[in-house]
Amino acid sequence: MPQMPQRVTIWEVGPRDGLQNEKTQVPVEVKERFVRRLVSAGLPVVEATSFVHPRWVPQLADAEELMTRLGDDGRGLPVLVPNERGLDRALELGLRHVAIFGSATETFAQRNLNRSVEEQFAMFEPVVRRARDAGLDVRAYVSMCFGDPWEGAVPVEQVVSVGRRLLDLGASQLSLGDTIGVGTANQVGALVDAFVAAGTGLGELALHFHDTYGQALANTLAGLQAGVTTYDASAGGLGGCPFAKSATGNLATEDLVWLLAGLGIEHGVDLDALVETSVWMAEQLGRPSPSAVVRALASSQS
Amino acid sequence: MPQMPQRVTIWEVGPRDGLQNEKTQVPVEVKERFVRRLVSAGLPVVEATSFVHPRWVPQLADAEELMTRLGDDGRGLPVLVPNERGLDRALELGLRHVAIFGSATETFAQRNLNRSVEEQFAMFEPVVRRARDAGLDVRAYVSMCFGDPWEGAVPVEQVVSVGRRLLDLGASQLSLGDTIGVGTANQVGALVDAFVAAGTGLGELALHFHDTYGQALANTLAGLQAGVTTYDASAGGLGGCPFAKSATGNLATEDLVWLLAGLGIEHGVDLDALVETSVWMAEQLGRPSPSAVVRALASSQS
Repeated sequence: MPQMPQRVTIWEVGPRDGLQNEKTQVPVEVKERFVRRLVSAGLPVVEATSFVHPRWVPQLADAEELMTRLGDDGRGLPVLVPNERGLDRALELGLRHVAIFGSATETFAQRNLNRSVEEQFAMFEPVVRRARDAGLDVRAYVSMCFGDPWEGAVPVEQVVSVGRRLLDLGASQLSLGDTIGVGTANQVGALVDAFVAAGTGLGELALHFHDTYGQALANTLAGLQAGVTTYDASAGGLGGCPFAKSATGNLATEDLVWLLAGLGIEHGVDLDALVETSVWMAEQLGRPSPSAVVRALASSQS
Repeated sequence: MPQMPQRVTIWEVGPRDGLQNEKTQVPVEVKERFVRRLVSAGLPVVEATSFVHPRWVPQLADAEELMTRLGDDGRGLPVLVPNERGLDRALELGLRHVAIFGSATETFAQRNLNRSVEEQFAMFEPVVRRARDAGLDVRAYVSMCFGDPWEGAVPVEQVVSVGRRLLDLGASQLSLGDTIGVGTANQVGALVDAFVAAGTGLGELALHFHDTYGQALANTLAGLQAGVTTYDASAGGLGGCPFAKSATGNLATEDLVWLLAGLGIEHGVDLDALVETSVWMAEQLGRPSPSAVVRALASSQS
């Protein structure tokens, strides 16, 4: 088996990508507790919320209040900013780490950003420039990297082109997203290799998998074999309901931790504390966690 | 990424390993239809039932009736025979393919077979000999190959020793089972390599994963990279209820097919026909399938 990294950074997206896809409106004090518990469990990066317009994501309408409550403890936590207005809000709060959300495909760019792939760069340019000028770190999500519900398979060159443009604007890291969960292992290796061939460092890449077709952990293994050291995951698999006809959730952080622990790869997370947090959060949402590890360990604990 | 096989054989265990772990008693005519639909969907091997005493597995008490209904179409389908009495029943029906079920660990041998690891060989010896003498093919399951709930991690040498003994008795293939789903990718590669180092051909090995900790497909990818060409799976993920606190189900055949298709590995299965079969079976059981692919595709079809 190929050499794999000795250490991996888990980028926890539960409070943002998870909760924005949950139907239940979670009170801000529960969100604050959730973020604090995730940090306490050893997660090195916890993306806290999104400064998107409440009309589009009412679940995160309390972004300012959450970050105000977190205070100094929240300054270093990344938040999503879709545009300059979002960045203004982050800057007013003194935050130091933001993320933008781009698209690798035309159809999703039109539907999600209301502009073309080319036009998205004009929108992101002042966001990244002003953030960097203010000393902030900027991550760039690239969505639909492995398949698009309208366009089907997405050419590797197209993803690399979009990603490189975002790095050239000043982003420090790309999060390559399989937004609809259709990708498989060889695609992961091919995409990472293509980015590296285009001059991208492995440290500039993160992988963001959804488990819609059950492939998230197999794709993670392929990413590890390709040398990528940052993986996005959502505590308890938040963002995908196991009772919905179509479960479109994020890779569960606990399932990722189980894989990493089994492979002997350092991750820094206290799995028991994380499972306890996810069980508690599932109670807040009134339904069991979709994470296999949470279900197995919560059952064995009781 | 390492070279992977061009073609894989899926060993469908839904009617046996799946249904024996479902609480719902499925009528024999539904089982017959299930087996026939799985064969029609292109699955090259469908393990039909188990000739175990009905006291232990009442779900499969109708084994004779099922195989009688299947008639000539069922002669080549493997059935589990726990002992000589089970073999006698299979021989009376003219079946041509049986499987035995051994244990790699002492505790599970005592609990499941009521004898020691060493004593199991004495029990299996006449079963395999008589089956081979009658011209039958014999598969040997080896359970608890990656971890045991009472003994923890299972030494590779112990698994290889048990597996080699079963091959030496006359079994043509070993199915190495992660019965409690705790294994991770590197263990898979290490176990396969150890069997090969002990003189076992890759064609004599199959891998049988459970998704209890979400690792089944990542482990499958590791198995493919190690060169194994036969994988057990259960249509629709039968055998693990997504609503139970502890989901201990088999790898879903549909999720395996999605991986193989994405990797460009031939499998011969009609995924649409398989998903339709699993949706129908889930209706018989009165609850949704735990397979991610079934949920995603059934949702997109409706």
